[in-house]
Amino acid sequence: MAFPINSNVVNAVEPPIAEAQSWIAGRKFPKNKPLLNLAQAVPSYPPANSMSEHLANNVKLFETAQYTAIAGIPALRDSLASNMMISHGGRIEAENVLISAGCNQAFCIAIMAIAKAGDEIILSAPYYFNHIMWLEMQGIKPVLLPFRSDLNSVPSLKDAANLITKKTKAIVLISPNNPTGAIYPPDILSKFFDLAHESKIALIVDETYKDFIKTMPPHNIFLSPYWEETFIQLYSFSKVFSLTGYRVGSIIGGQNIINSATKVMDTLAICAPRIAQDAALFGLDNLEQWVADKRVGILERLKYVNEIFRNSETSYELISSGAYFAYVKHPFKEKSSKEVAKQLAEKENILCLPGSFFGPNQEQFLRIAFANATVEELSVLSKRLESSLRSLAPA
Amino acid sequence: MAFPINSNVVNAVEPPIAEAQSWIAGRKFPKNKPLLNLAQAVPSYPPANSMSEHLANNVKLFETAQYTAIAGIPALRDSLASNMMISHGGRIEAENVLISAGCNQAFCIAIMAIAKAGDEIILSAPYYFNHIMWLEMQGIKPVLLPFRSDLNSVPSLKDAANLITKKTKAIVLISPNNPTGAIYPPDILSKFFDLAHESKIALIVDETYKDFIKTMPPHNIFLSPYWEETFIQLYSFSKVFSLTGYRVGSIIGGQNIINSATKVMDTLAICAPRIAQDAALFGLDNLEQWVADKRVGILERLKYVNEIFRNSETSYELISSGAYFAYVKHPFKEKSSKEVAKQLAEKENILCLPGSFFGPNQEQFLRIAFANATVEELSVLSKRLESSLRSLAPA
Repeated sequence: MAFPINSNVVNAVEPPIAEAQSWIAGRKFPKNKPLLNLAQAVPSYPPANSMSEHLANNVKLFETAQYTAIAGIPALRDSLASNMMISHGGRIEAENVLISAGCNQAFCIAIMAIAKAGDEIILSAPYYFNHIMWLEMQGIKPVLLPFRSDLNSVPSLKDAANLITKKTKAIVLISPNNPTGAIYPPDILSKFFDLAHESKIALIVDETYKDFIKTMPPHNIFLSPYWEETFIQLYSFSKVFSLTGYRVGSIIGGQNIINSATKVMDTLAICAPRIAQDAALFGLDNLEQWVADKRVGILERLKYVNEIFRNSETSYELISSGAYFAYVKHPFKEKSSKEVAKQLAEKENILCLPGSFFGPNQEQFLRIAFANATVEELSVLSKRLESSLRSLAPA
Repeated sequence: MAFPINSNVVNAVEPPIAEAQSWIAGRKFPKNKPLLNLAQAVPSYPPANSMSEHLANNVKLFETAQYTAIAGIPALRDSLASNMMISHGGRIEAENVLISAGCNQAFCIAIMAIAKAGDEIILSAPYYFNHIMWLEMQGIKPVLLPFRSDLNSVPSLKDAANLITKKTKAIVLISPNNPTGAIYPPDILSKFFDLAHESKIALIVDETYKDFIKTMPPHNIFLSPYWEETFIQLYSFSKVFSLTGYRVGSIIGGQNIINSATKVMDTLAICAPRIAQDAALFGLDNLEQWVADKRVGILERLKYVNEIFRNSETSYELISSGAYFAYVKHPFKEKSSKEVAKQLAEKENILCLPGSFFGPNQEQFLRIAFANATVEELSVLSKRLESSLRSLAPA
């Protein structure tokens, strides 16, 4: 190699989904023990038929093949603002919205808008791996908010306050959480907002999974008269409308943030794909009932998973669960979480992610993306976990 | 505002296309003097019908709504590698290809793969504004390779050699050039490649407009047995297949670069939109004749524009032209390029971009994206430029 690679990229955490997929690559699974894939968080059902038909018409329009405004189609920005006011309350204008090509990109842009190499960002542990990867690649120091399994997997305000320095630019939370599934109570989110406001830093909350919880609003931050000064919400249309392959998400924030984010978006992507924006707009305006039905289905899976662990004799312990994920403590104290996950794939045909993919001190845990599978498919989970007590035991 | 914005973003060059569009916002143009929009480089024709029909079928498939591999659909990586070997020669494998969501993103990812805050990157002046914006936002120092209108608008190797320091990570060239239209001769590109190789830095060439030139190959760099050690090619499917709104482009490079770029891509975007990748693949495999026909049309426009200036009495001087753009010296020595461009919009209903959008010392120039308009539409250009000598003259 004649020239060196950026050491920030070389040293950043490796993208783990591909590694997990390599554990099952090329394998054929028997009919009586098919693969139970609970790894990557992707909807198990296609988009609504009405949406597919709408998009099939749209691809025939010249405008679908053309750039949109950098911050997105005005009607989509407007519709998302209205929709978010209905779910969360408060006052949100179209000008508070930027449409991105997915929520990973929303995170990257929001971080670039407020932080640069040498700054610090507080992430709650266990973290979403792409979040820490972006910080490391940007030369921004990630500071980890300890995992509090003793507090229902919700981070502690006091822990956060102790981590804020002069270099801190933001606290990043994810609720409903990935990987733990924990749904942070509105009053705790309000307190994090107050802490960030007093500390003159941003509070960034990734609400990708907000559509899969039972009770609204997820929080009351938009009701604050000064939410625009401190709050940045990240969101994805990928899960709610089953659009992962289309790449569409959003940032909601104050005008300064959106202006800065628009400058980054122009440079990085020019605009989100038009067809993906069309899909999101169609979904917001037409698929309320479809989304509600899917929510019921996901909540059934959640209930089923919770019952498995409540009644289980498997020694796997449910730490937290909600929206898309369950975070589970495995019984193999002598094994790393990666060994356990890999062996569950090999011996029990269950693919899930090891806690170590989500940060340090997570070796006891596994992330189970239960939303990927139907209740029928999940029905084998209990038995296979029980079987793993023997199949994974040291020889 | 409770928290500050990243100063690297605040201080970066502003995205100029929106500013130019503001000069005509809300205006109605008379039938006898319609707007001649030669500003943003976008195809003036829709995608091929066969492609639209293919995509209309694809949106009904569940897989279209799902993630692809991070580096792109294997068949597309393979097809692009084959296609590039046909146009450029040499040996390119599917593993040398990463599919991005457009060529802006390809640039951002390639830069991140090799450079970080404090490093230097050499850009040829006049630059493509999104290139310098990304460097500034990343805290990377852009070093400008002087504009050599005396050398047919092709940068000088000697100038480049003088700018390389210990902090330099790459030289970035664009050929066919945006904004000048200049097509860099293969032997000069080879010399830049040798310089970069000897200096242990990367040579990045953005070949977005490669499909609109008359003679192939654009260069012989892929024939070098060590091209992978030094060369990074950026490309866009947006212009060739009229897909700007779909967002799909590519990076071709050595395995180290592609590995590093894949890590960045995962973090930034997970993958390029599936439907956009499907479109690119369909185009490569089926639209050779369609592309050839469009090329003929663009070459006719180029010829027409060249003739306008050769025969013109307007005192506008053609500096260079090719592919999508002509770079023109305006006759108003007392006016800034922005004043001239704005007044051309206001008085002559011609929208083009001022040289100052593309860097310092460009006040004499205008970029004309002639590919945006048909020969029929361009037929008014000569008369309007002549008229501007009076309408733009100081009162």
